[in-house]
Amino acid sequence: MERNVARLKARLDGLGVTLRPHLKTCKSVDVARRVMTSPAGPATVSTLREAEQFAAAGVRDILYAVGVAPAKLPQVLALRARGADVAVVLDTVEQAQAVAQASRSAGTRIPALIEIDCDGHRSGVRPDDAQRLLDIGRALEAGAELRGVLTHAGGSYAASGSEALRQCAETERRSVVDAAAILRAAGLPCPVVSVGSTPTAHHATDLAGVTEVRAGVFVFFDLVMAGIGVCQVSDIALSVLATVIGHQRDKGWILIDAGWMALSQDRGTRRQAVDQGYGLVCDMAGVPYADLIVGDANQEHGILMVRPGSDGLLPDLAIGDRVRILPNHACATGAQHRGYHVVRGTSGRVEAEWPRFGGWQ
Amino acid sequence: MERNVARLKARLDGLGVTLRPHLKTCKSVDVARRVMTSPAGPATVSTLREAEQFAAAGVRDILYAVGVAPAKLPQVLALRARGADVAVVLDTVEQAQAVAQASRSAGTRIPALIEIDCDGHRSGVRPDDAQRLLDIGRALEAGAELRGVLTHAGGSYAASGSEALRQCAETERRSVVDAAAILRAAGLPCPVVSVGSTPTAHHATDLAGVTEVRAGVFVFFDLVMAGIGVCQVSDIALSVLATVIGHQRDKGWILIDAGWMALSQDRGTRRQAVDQGYGLVCDMAGVPYADLIVGDANQEHGILMVRPGSDGLLPDLAIGDRVRILPNHACATGAQHRGYHVVRGTSGRVEAEWPRFGGWQ
Repeated sequence: MERNVARLKARLDGLGVTLRPHLKTCKSVDVARRVMTSPAGPATVSTLREAEQFAAAGVRDILYAVGVAPAKLPQVLALRARGADVAVVLDTVEQAQAVAQASRSAGTRIPALIEIDCDGHRSGVRPDDAQRLLDIGRALEAGAELRGVLTHAGGSYAASGSEALRQCAETERRSVVDAAAILRAAGLPCPVVSVGSTPTAHHATDLAGVTEVRAGVFVFFDLVMAGIGVCQVSDIALSVLATVIGHQRDKGWILIDAGWMALSQDRGTRRQAVDQGYGLVCDMAGVPYADLIVGDANQEHGILMVRPGSDGLLPDLAIGDRVRILPNHACATGAQHRGYHVVRGTSGRVEAEWPRFGGWQ
Repeated sequence: MERNVARLKARLDGLGVTLRPHLKTCKSVDVARRVMTSPAGPATVSTLREAEQFAAAGVRDILYAVGVAPAKLPQVLALRARGADVAVVLDTVEQAQAVAQASRSAGTRIPALIEIDCDGHRSGVRPDDAQRLLDIGRALEAGAELRGVLTHAGGSYAASGSEALRQCAETERRSVVDAAAILRAAGLPCPVVSVGSTPTAHHATDLAGVTEVRAGVFVFFDLVMAGIGVCQVSDIALSVLATVIGHQRDKGWILIDAGWMALSQDRGTRRQAVDQGYGLVCDMAGVPYADLIVGDANQEHGILMVRPGSDGLLPDLAIGDRVRILPNHACATGAQHRGYHVVRGTSGRVEAEWPRFGGWQ
């Protein structure tokens, strides 16, 4: 984990941009303090519950990076009143009007970033839709604070290979730089130009015009990131420790006490070149067994098997033996747990326990 | 929920068997008290954490229905020492020897059920493998208590239609009745003969020789159960309340603030006749919009769309409007939340909040 964090920080230092880590991956104050560039932030969150938890731990510069629902603005105002500079994100005139209205009513100016759709992946204003950009910007300025523009190259998760990822990063960069230019040309402010996804953050070679990069999963990495070439399997800093509870020898199955409650149901490697099932199986030192995956999972049962198509052999694991499962998606697997057991190297000795907060919102 | 519970209780009363509800679905003391036939149980759990929570709430008759790892036996003994009759499940001689050894060391007899594999779905001893059954039974009797046999028709989740489900129920029943006969013929005890899955519990017409039925998801039901014909969509007693946060009108998308953190990543209807995406979208009164599903989900974003292939129209939902999402799998969706907001009928008024405990183990 420390190596993963140092790697991205060094990379972004070289590109002259600030890291605003996305704390939705860790949902842990202990991890956040090791990822952020200062104890006060900057930070990105995906729910206002995260914002509250991190604000209570002293984080002051918080971007709530999911399009804001008007009913959540009183919670944003309460956080700001307690001293946290919480900014919101939106992509419609209706939201901008609601933020401006809430700001006027509270006698303050809620900062907001306009979300840009760089790749058709999800939400946001198309960067060439100048009219909508200006309408939103002007609606915000009637009471709130237009702080900038933001995008997320969600499409980069489906890319593969350095050249494709560099292209995603450049498309991501250009979308917000273009949108910022439209706003500024109309006399509107746009101090923040924010991009971010773990794949593009690791492949951008030019971030001219960008002020900050958001990324989350890089802190732990996972099999999806390894599959698209952003990290090696040996970089993955999160695993689930499980115990062998049975065998179906005629089927080539080993049963463990970790099902989808422990691993999550994320099957993000399903469409990648190497399908890792519900996770890749390692020994206690974190070294993968050849082609051994969690091939199926029920709520509290995982079924280990050799990857279909492989001529690998099932390892000789006895009842009670322990294995480590590497996750497809660190955010999803982490969300199934109440905390982290921190180990260093291959000793397996637990140096610390770091709680995480769970639950939706 | 009350109707779903009453329905299964009445059904099992008619068949002359006891309900031992599986509390892994609700993970809530408040729900458990409304599902169990008495405040002391019987109950089924999927983790020892559930056992501890329910034991602390006064449940005394608890079956831990996942094959036991030897390292968990001290925790089982501690629970038993505090007065909870916790029984374990196993399907290997190694586990039976470990349970007998732990029992002798503690000067007590841990009760254990032998798991039977009725349909090749997951774990268990094949019901015709008399030698293995007897080896396990004798290993248990050398210190522990052989309490009976248990099976779970996991394959019934892939069945569809009343006749197929009745057949699953009969296969399930026969597997444990046959296994019990083998044990008894050898002079071994087998007082408990336990079957269970929500689909078979609702389709068995003869449970001769069976003493108890386990079922979990029936308390809430879900879209998977509706898809295989066990309930109607209108029986589903669990939904996620979400808010509209955006539109991509040219794509026919409505964005909501509930992604897979709120809905889970369960895609259990993917292989059913009607694929419900990440959930079926209803109005605030719980009435489904025609063919409107959560077609895609990221961590905190859901994308509503008309089901592919339908000529239905996207409803006119504005920023801030609220919808209810029915889950594919109630166990998985519940696990993403810290509690239940209890509403009766269509009023939407929250009558109570019932906490649930989360996290793995």
